[in-house]
Amino acid sequence: MTPDTDSQRTIVSSSFERHDLPLEESFTISRGTTDTATVLTVELEDETGRVGVGGAGPASYYDETPDSVEEVLPKLLEAVESIGDPHAQQVIEERLAALAPDEAAARAAVSIAVHDLAATQADEPLYRRWGLDGARAPTTSYTIGIDSPDGMHDRAQRARERGYDVLKVKLGTDADRDRLEAVREAAPDARIRVDANCAWTPEEGIKNTEWLADLSVEFLEQPVPSEDIDGLRRISEEGALPIAADESCVTATDVPAVADAVDIVVVKLMKCGGLRPAQRQILAAKAHGLDVMLGCMTESNASIAGACQLTPLVEYADLDGALLLESDVYDGVAMSDGKIDLTSVARGVGISPR
Amino acid sequence: MTPDTDSQRTIVSSSFERHDLPLEESFTISRGTTDTATVLTVELEDETGRVGVGGAGPASYYDETPDSVEEVLPKLLEAVESIGDPHAQQVIEERLAALAPDEAAARAAVSIAVHDLAATQADEPLYRRWGLDGARAPTTSYTIGIDSPDGMHDRAQRARERGYDVLKVKLGTDADRDRLEAVREAAPDARIRVDANCAWTPEEGIKNTEWLADLSVEFLEQPVPSEDIDGLRRISEEGALPIAADESCVTATDVPAVADAVDIVVVKLMKCGGLRPAQRQILAAKAHGLDVMLGCMTESNASIAGACQLTPLVEYADLDGALLLESDVYDGVAMSDGKIDLTSVARGVGISPR
Repeated sequence: MTPDTDSQRTIVSSSFERHDLPLEESFTISRGTTDTATVLTVELEDETGRVGVGGAGPASYYDETPDSVEEVLPKLLEAVESIGDPHAQQVIEERLAALAPDEAAARAAVSIAVHDLAATQADEPLYRRWGLDGARAPTTSYTIGIDSPDGMHDRAQRARERGYDVLKVKLGTDADRDRLEAVREAAPDARIRVDANCAWTPEEGIKNTEWLADLSVEFLEQPVPSEDIDGLRRISEEGALPIAADESCVTATDVPAVADAVDIVVVKLMKCGGLRPAQRQILAAKAHGLDVMLGCMTESNASIAGACQLTPLVEYADLDGALLLESDVYDGVAMSDGKIDLTSVARGVGISPR
Repeated sequence: MTPDTDSQRTIVSSSFERHDLPLEESFTISRGTTDTATVLTVELEDETGRVGVGGAGPASYYDETPDSVEEVLPKLLEAVESIGDPHAQQVIEERLAALAPDEAAARAAVSIAVHDLAATQADEPLYRRWGLDGARAPTTSYTIGIDSPDGMHDRAQRARERGYDVLKVKLGTDADRDRLEAVREAAPDARIRVDANCAWTPEEGIKNTEWLADLSVEFLEQPVPSEDIDGLRRISEEGALPIAADESCVTATDVPAVADAVDIVVVKLMKCGGLRPAQRQILAAKAHGLDVMLGCMTESNASIAGACQLTPLVEYADLDGALLLESDVYDGVAMSDGKIDLTSVARGVGISPR
């Protein structure tokens, strides 16, 4: 069907921009420290001047950098302009995957912008276009990066003062227990999840779940390196906590291999490459009876707002990427106290220039 | 979000009707013979008079009958009216599943009508709302029911004369090879698939794939009883043809158990209970690297048109339910020569009263 109504207009131009967005606080995980989120934002414009926005938050762990995204985006945007129809999402996704199979963050930026424009043309929020219930978006966790025990205590305290009830605590250091105890002291009533970002051995993972459970941690994310599915399975079976796979489960086709090894799969647009791939990964995990957490990198609202559209499908949200920024170039889905408020989305994915 | 624009209007009334639709030819499979498709159709009307249509084609194999559908529909329609918003599809699906967990065909009828109304309100075809590419709908097969070898020869000949290039041949008799040879003689250039509807043992299945392959059959559907997943696996491994699971794979959560036993999963709205459950089953199968066939019961266009919306996601279509009818109460998606023409859908799922 040729786009021929006002709600189905052709894409006539595209652009992208690179932004160095300072973080409120320096952010450390087991693999390194950062003070700035360098993101790329994409805009697509249709013939009536309506705009779709998306963003990329590339992660070096997945071999993507701001430079690599910047390099591949012109090719992807050219393809989208040549297809023209923002409703042709299946076709666009396949074209992008063929052009940039290893550049998931770049594809995700374009995917979000395409869906934002299509839903904006239709004057509907994307989550409603997909029939999803905005009322059931879970509260996002707020991440406490690695710091000294005292530093993490203070970070957690500030997070609680700002109203965040759910904390995700990064571990994978030489004194993990001291650190988590400090966080728990500062936030005695918070829901706490722990992410070790591949830093432990299976034996450490099993042992650590004991004191993690004593400190009322909800679940443990990616304790061992990504390729160690057996390690995840052992910790699930012998440890005291539910286990989540993040680095071990990049796309939908990775779900079967981890399905009997973990309880939760972490889905990120920047890993899988867009909204449709994320939907596939979520539904594959559900078919296996797994719970799902929608996660993110350090990202702008230009991409977080896209991920928010899928939150009614999942049990857990870790979509604080833009909450960690000192300033952002776009506003996104309202997230006061971490409560993802999809009713704040008037149309599209709910991104507006700041 | 309260429905408050013209494209988001509340459901104000609903109705359903039972129809005995005569088949063009009596239809026999390994489990029995029928001359009539008894279907239920559902209509939902919004406050501006727009109508969403859906249909149920209950199958006794899954313990549903026209009577059981008729009995449960008032409860389901009452629930949908009380929710009111046809865009609240996630909420509606969960409510229906809670009310009628074992009545998949009844739920499917309501699911199709809800999606039809929502997409009609938005003045978009459903497949485009979901970003799917109408151009890639596969050609549907046309089913040749069990008959004498001569009878099947003539049925196949008539099917070919009517332009159907892809035949699905029902077997599971005492002289299957004679029958398939008769069909192949009448349709030397047709693509042929075979469905044994659970009638064989694994040993028969393995042996039969030899002559099925000699007769250039594409794949073999459900050779053994539904619970015999090992039998499916053995035939896949030791036989000469790709194997499809139909009765062995009812919903998305059945996919993991058959994933290493077959090559193809058959998804039917009347098995899984609606458009969203079918989407989940399709995407779960894809995550396992399986191909998918969208299938049907003997059904009216009121339900076939719903299944057609998902065809851009699948490799094979067996959506001839309404093609087998002498008369139908609705028109649906154009299917001349078996070619599913989604561009014929102006809005909704493309159902109109005949």
